[in-house]
Amino acid sequence: MITSSSNGQMKQLVKLQKSGKARKEKNCFVVEGIRMVQEIPKTQLQKVYVTEDFFLKNQEMLQNIDYELVSDSVLKEVSDTKTPQGILALVEKVDSSIEQICGKENPSFLVLENLQDPGNVGTLIRTAEGAGVTAVLLSQDTVDLYNPKVIRSTMGSIFRVPTIVLTMEEIFAFLEKEKIVSFAAHLLGENFYQENYKEPCAFFIGNEGNGLTEKTTNRIKKKIKIPMCGEVESLNAAIAGTVLMYEMMRQRMS
Amino acid sequence: MITSSSNGQMKQLVKLQKSGKARKEKNCFVVEGIRMVQEIPKTQLQKVYVTEDFFLKNQEMLQNIDYELVSDSVLKEVSDTKTPQGILALVEKVDSSIEQICGKENPSFLVLENLQDPGNVGTLIRTAEGAGVTAVLLSQDTVDLYNPKVIRSTMGSIFRVPTIVLTMEEIFAFLEKEKIVSFAAHLLGENFYQENYKEPCAFFIGNEGNGLTEKTTNRIKKKIKIPMCGEVESLNAAIAGTVLMYEMMRQRMS
Repeated sequence: MITSSSNGQMKQLVKLQKSGKARKEKNCFVVEGIRMVQEIPKTQLQKVYVTEDFFLKNQEMLQNIDYELVSDSVLKEVSDTKTPQGILALVEKVDSSIEQICGKENPSFLVLENLQDPGNVGTLIRTAEGAGVTAVLLSQDTVDLYNPKVIRSTMGSIFRVPTIVLTMEEIFAFLEKEKIVSFAAHLLGENFYQENYKEPCAFFIGNEGNGLTEKTTNRIKKKIKIPMCGEVESLNAAIAGTVLMYEMMRQRMS
Repeated sequence: MITSSSNGQMKQLVKLQKSGKARKEKNCFVVEGIRMVQEIPKTQLQKVYVTEDFFLKNQEMLQNIDYELVSDSVLKEVSDTKTPQGILALVEKVDSSIEQICGKENPSFLVLENLQDPGNVGTLIRTAEGAGVTAVLLSQDTVDLYNPKVIRSTMGSIFRVPTIVLTMEEIFAFLEKEKIVSFAAHLLGENFYQENYKEPCAFFIGNEGNGLTEKTTNRIKKKIKIPMCGEVESLNAAIAGTVLMYEMMRQRMS
């Protein structure tokens, strides 16, 4: 049993939790909690760390898995949550590629430009899966996809929805090649309920404070706005993305 | 200038930031940030605390306001955010009453039962204003409405949308008296797109982990489910509430 946080493996886990640079260098990230760990594809799962208490209660789940016992206090130090569930896993990053998402039948995309709130990004990935979105494309200045709060907020969708980090140039090139109609969520846009999302489409959502950059906005013909009552000036980025994606789903279902 | 966090006013602010009990006893709460402070109704604003730097840059805004200077380090200690904007305010709690929301024209309500994530509750209040909801009704076991994270996530909507904390009994009595049709967001419900939300209606959203209680679910005839693709088991509570409220808006606009 690992009982010291100066253990080499534990030190690495702490680094991976805290630093996007470390995650990039090692090509790994950390996943916490029993439900999330069960979602990890076997090919990506490198090692699981559990407390003794967790081990005694969940021996079946750990069959055929490379695991190691860690003391409660060490696991708590390594964990990114206040009340850890007694299990975390080291996982290999496997990025999706543009090739994987080419030529899909009537696809739809969510494009995130410079989003900084990890909860928003994770929640949008989870909602994108729910709304049947083909893939989520993220600009390179968006918060790190493998940030522990992003991972947690996806509730496992990170392992199921293709997510690809690209330059905005690459994103536009892909969408143009695939003949996807782009829609920019913009406060000066038209009422978004009047547009048709039954055909291949992409929704662009911008940074929490500033929205989409001018450069990106100028490149997109169709600017759409979600109607707002009262004195609300804008909606939260995850909320705006949700309203757009679910309107697409409604149109496609009807 | 207040330069010590052991100053009586500062000690009270810290208590109000941390403790729902203190907020209840003093009937006050704390609001942070320039945009949020500007939204506070004058009748509720008790006192404003600013750093010298903030004061020098925003003297106009502080005209006719009872303010006091606080050192940067003390304001940082009192603040609930990592990067405080140099201004916070002591605000009187003014609860809305049932009487205020009776007899409105074609009203709609959002009912939150035992939600625990302050970000979800604040975001839902903000979105409720955007979607034109008449009032947000909260069960007594929902996270404290005046929690600093709730306040922050509302982005000012807390001062504009009536929010009322009630027992579930009181909520049902009100809705029945006003002849409002209740809809329970439930994983075993019918496709929610098939229902009509043009008439007076209320959407019930339950706790993040467990959904609505059985007791509440059983009392509501109409159970509705948001369709989900992929392997998503549920949506985040704020996301689910958003999809329902904006479908109502869409129907009412068309």
